[in-house]
Amino acid sequence: MPEKGTFNWAKGFVLDFALSDGMSKTAVSTKRYLAQMKGMFADDAAYAKMLPDNPLVYEFFELGAPENSGDIAFGTSITYPGKVGDEYFMTKGHFHTILETAEVYYGLSGEGFMLIENPEGDTTAHPIAPGKAVYVPKRYAHRSVNTGSVPLTTFFAFRGDAGHNYATIETKGFRKLIVAGVDGKPEITDNPRWGA
Amino acid sequence: MPEKGTFNWAKGFVLDFALSDGMSKTAVSTKRYLAQMKGMFADDAAYAKMLPDNPLVYEFFELGAPENSGDIAFGTSITYPGKVGDEYFMTKGHFHTILETAEVYYGLSGEGFMLIENPEGDTTAHPIAPGKAVYVPKRYAHRSVNTGSVPLTTFFAFRGDAGHNYATIETKGFRKLIVAGVDGKPEITDNPRWGA
Repeated sequence: MPEKGTFNWAKGFVLDFALSDGMSKTAVSTKRYLAQMKGMFADDAAYAKMLPDNPLVYEFFELGAPENSGDIAFGTSITYPGKVGDEYFMTKGHFHTILETAEVYYGLSGEGFMLIENPEGDTTAHPIAPGKAVYVPKRYAHRSVNTGSVPLTTFFAFRGDAGHNYATIETKGFRKLIVAGVDGKPEITDNPRWGA
Repeated sequence: MPEKGTFNWAKGFVLDFALSDGMSKTAVSTKRYLAQMKGMFADDAAYAKMLPDNPLVYEFFELGAPENSGDIAFGTSITYPGKVGDEYFMTKGHFHTILETAEVYYGLSGEGFMLIENPEGDTTAHPIAPGKAVYVPKRYAHRSVNTGSVPLTTFFAFRGDAGHNYATIETKGFRKLIVAGVDGKPEITDNPRWGA
């Protein structure tokens, strides 16, 4: 087992990610709290009301894969259960900097959706569940949305040099939102503020 | 859920791989029986003796990812428990055709090793277990070896255009073997026939 942060990408290594909850005892996760997601949820009043508690919305592992087209970045992502108003907790979401690179996610626990959209506006909400692999194609921004009551955990892999473009989504948002409907079930709706 | 064999790599898709055993109800696996591994185990007499039963040694999923550097091939690999003489059941193993491409394996069930070696002769046996991710670096041939009593199952991901070079290993073998020692525990030994 390597020490924290010391991964030998040239010789290979073994790293723990618990199948039950995606957590590693060896690697350190990157955490995103509600305060870091200003403007990303549709209901500003509900966001402001929750802000004093500043809950952890999601976390994921960045292992520092070489930014090289022959390497593979991988890790786990954990999105916690919760809602801001009627909108489910989710990751910020991003395009890859190298737009023409795909990613695969393998569901370990929890339930929700991988919301994807490409620059031309094609959108799909692929269901995520334990034992389901979701293919995020080239050119698609992607965001995990937890519609359940336990953490939504996935194992992910993508090209080492793909990079993360968060700015486009932070500025424009996704075209679709995933919210709890009146019956409490997830609904996919248009984002009234998209592109604003 | 896509129909068998129809995966939309351009729009994304969801595919089932059971966390318990790696099997898919939707996709079709490629199977490798003992008869397809002639000359790959060290003990020819033990091999010949087992051949009439022709057991299934391993299977894995090939989904037909586009042979493109921006796509990611993925699936599960299942290596069954067993031995030929004192050598554990294993996959054929291969280099990637594009040598400078890595691969990640995430252990779902069972126990064993990911045996790796590069053309210069550097070799390592990385332990595989449930909840352990193994990074196979660029330039390394890799083979799964099941040293336990239940199927060894992994989820894998690599670049869509990496390709498989089986011929080098079929001709030369790996420099190391993994065999049951006199105490029944796995031992890593030199392959006396390597390069022959």
